[in-house]
Amino acid sequence: MGNLPNQTITAQTITDIYAGLHAIGQIDSGYDRPAYSDVETAAIRYIQGLADQAGLSHYWDAAANLIIELQGQEDRWVESGSHLDTVPGGGNYDGAAGVIAALSVLIYVKKSQLRPYKGLRLRVWRGEESASFGVVSIGARAIMGVLPNEAWEQMHNGQSLYAAMQAQGADAKALRTGMQGMTSAQQAVISAYVELHIEQGNVLEQSKKTIGVVTGIRGSIRSWVRLKGRFDHSGATPMGTEFRADVNLAMSYMQVRLHELAQEYGGQDLVQTIGVVNLNTSVAQALPDLRFNAVSKVSGCGFFSHEIRSCSLTLMDAYMLRVKAIVATTAAEFGVEMALETFSRMVGIPALDPLIQRTIADQCMALNIPSIPLPSGAWHDAGVMAQTECRDGRLIPVGMIFIPSHDGVSHSPQEWTSAADIATGATVLLHTMLQLAAD
Amino acid sequence: MGNLPNQTITAQTITDIYAGLHAIGQIDSGYDRPAYSDVETAAIRYIQGLADQAGLSHYWDAAANLIIELQGQEDRWVESGSHLDTVPGGGNYDGAAGVIAALSVLIYVKKSQLRPYKGLRLRVWRGEESASFGVVSIGARAIMGVLPNEAWEQMHNGQSLYAAMQAQGADAKALRTGMQGMTSAQQAVISAYVELHIEQGNVLEQSKKTIGVVTGIRGSIRSWVRLKGRFDHSGATPMGTEFRADVNLAMSYMQVRLHELAQEYGGQDLVQTIGVVNLNTSVAQALPDLRFNAVSKVSGCGFFSHEIRSCSLTLMDAYMLRVKAIVATTAAEFGVEMALETFSRMVGIPALDPLIQRTIADQCMALNIPSIPLPSGAWHDAGVMAQTECRDGRLIPVGMIFIPSHDGVSHSPQEWTSAADIATGATVLLHTMLQLAAD
Repeated sequence: MGNLPNQTITAQTITDIYAGLHAIGQIDSGYDRPAYSDVETAAIRYIQGLADQAGLSHYWDAAANLIIELQGQEDRWVESGSHLDTVPGGGNYDGAAGVIAALSVLIYVKKSQLRPYKGLRLRVWRGEESASFGVVSIGARAIMGVLPNEAWEQMHNGQSLYAAMQAQGADAKALRTGMQGMTSAQQAVISAYVELHIEQGNVLEQSKKTIGVVTGIRGSIRSWVRLKGRFDHSGATPMGTEFRADVNLAMSYMQVRLHELAQEYGGQDLVQTIGVVNLNTSVAQALPDLRFNAVSKVSGCGFFSHEIRSCSLTLMDAYMLRVKAIVATTAAEFGVEMALETFSRMVGIPALDPLIQRTIADQCMALNIPSIPLPSGAWHDAGVMAQTECRDGRLIPVGMIFIPSHDGVSHSPQEWTSAADIATGATVLLHTMLQLAAD
Repeated sequence: MGNLPNQTITAQTITDIYAGLHAIGQIDSGYDRPAYSDVETAAIRYIQGLADQAGLSHYWDAAANLIIELQGQEDRWVESGSHLDTVPGGGNYDGAAGVIAALSVLIYVKKSQLRPYKGLRLRVWRGEESASFGVVSIGARAIMGVLPNEAWEQMHNGQSLYAAMQAQGADAKALRTGMQGMTSAQQAVISAYVELHIEQGNVLEQSKKTIGVVTGIRGSIRSWVRLKGRFDHSGATPMGTEFRADVNLAMSYMQVRLHELAQEYGGQDLVQTIGVVNLNTSVAQALPDLRFNAVSKVSGCGFFSHEIRSCSLTLMDAYMLRVKAIVATTAAEFGVEMALETFSRMVGIPALDPLIQRTIADQCMALNIPSIPLPSGAWHDAGVMAQTECRDGRLIPVGMIFIPSHDGVSHSPQEWTSAADIATGATVLLHTMLQLAAD
């Protein structure tokens, strides 16, 4: 069975599948489909309905991930996967484009009467974004048995992850005790996993390429820095650290010094972001004094988030030592108490499977689609598949296909990828999966 | 009628009056008695009750300020005054100590059968703190006819100042149209106004003095700085202003640069405070994108407060030109949009009445109480009385007496002044008012 260049997925196919998804979880500005929420389930059920119409079979695993499949001639599988949850105010492409591309591949193969040797699967993962529960790739990690114990009690909107999963039909009770995850036999039949995703950066657009062959995935270390100073009268308390223990001032110096530290690392694979200052509900609840900040008072309480990302854990660990020193030194200088708590530590993937990388690049060449290799700056469910040792000790071969993000914008209402670019990515995914499934 | 050194107000008197006030508006951490709230009214009614018991007369003016009085031999008055509202999480001394000291003076004189030539009055002002409606000295300015027009629609807890005043029995409708304020005749009979207040700094404590003879009052200029950038994926968006429009980063550089600017002015009468970052409900409501800040996103929206205080308006105006330049330059450097809106501009009092200053100092000397002259770093209702031109063009002679604040702390649950220090201040106030009322 040879693949033919005229086997293509059209932009119209992508647009048609998107039509029903655009309305699910839309808010005033962008989308909000939290992990393990009713609206995430509604989005997944919409995809399931299309799979049913196309005559594809499906099942739900114990973490309430949806698996859509098209059986092959033997019980081995070439898989794809992606997610439908979004950050609050995010777009409808981060995750969704990968699900829709893979669904269009399965529908195409089903209609085409092609009979690949191995079966094709789409895993619609739950809760890839950390925005709701502070934990990434919940569905993938839960079913692979590598969700950290502390994750179950993380809260979102007054509900624990455990309760939210139960409410959406997952068997959190069993998963928590190590039961109902993927068995050794279920893992053994996964031959390859290839995920399509938007780039979420602007490298492809700037280099005028349509496909990125992903080389590795950045991990991350995320922390909260909490500060306690002293509330004083803003007019009668002289300036200077001998009179004031000013949290806002200490925070601003910390941020500037951490930015200067990141600039020192400019040539290396590392990005740093302080995304939140004083605005996370859960952290704020643990800091009741936060509400006493006022225009006419020296600030006595505050917090901010700190995140770094890199493919190299060694580099991140070394960097964090310097971060801690800067935060501690600056806190002491301004007379405020500080606590730095790392709440998430994701190891990156230094290298995705080289044979899959070459297969993707070969298909692009055969299809005359311009591609370049590049690392992923964001975490993806593919990372869980690539880094989790199966019960038999094997690692699943994993690859990723990137398609352009307009202006490099994502996690934003302005996130956008054209139907034509998604269709081109889906066509590359189709040929890659068929090639990997050929024998 | 000569004053005698053995005419003293005791610490027990102060403690007894305080006993009932300590329970009103107490919260988990400190006090919360907002301007024109039920709890502020409850505190004022408690004071009214004590005045009634002592046989003092009272009335409420159109701004719902309470006036307690003891008539003299003619219709001219030596007045004192202070407030009972607090900032959220403030203490029970800023304002309250002045009310209690002045009430103890009136009760003392009433009981003593002394008959001063002029009458003695206590004005219990409403809403001196700006924490609720962003406007200081609401009651004093409303009755003196100098409340800015825009103040009426300022919001607190979903209620406009206008509505809050009506709800607490003020005739906001009449005041707003210029009716029901103090008449020319009512202003003309005020011979002097002397306010006792805690220092809210640590100059008295450090110099081991019990009384501060206040020389002038700092005014203030308060502004909101609102910033808009772009939400981007924190892992896939390279660092650097060519890729990111990062509000949190721009805010921190602004704060550090404004701090450096204040340090340039170190020798001059000016203090600067950034009291609030991202935490004011009213401002946040006008910035709906604020909720889209997240750990895994470059920050796209934020705001902070900016305040300076000085006795010199000229100095403040010159300083604000440099503040605006720094904010604009930094915003442009980081590719974010900015708006700086000055929402409050209080002119200070370069000099309080020199004869009253001398009278206070003379009483201290006669009573053998150590005093020093010092400026007020905080705004007070006395400032409204000192700076408002009466309808006949006259300025009311105004003085202020400071008593120590422990550790210089105020606007804080740790705010504290001993009953002994308040009693000493009340004794100085008694002798000063009797002296000024003597002819």
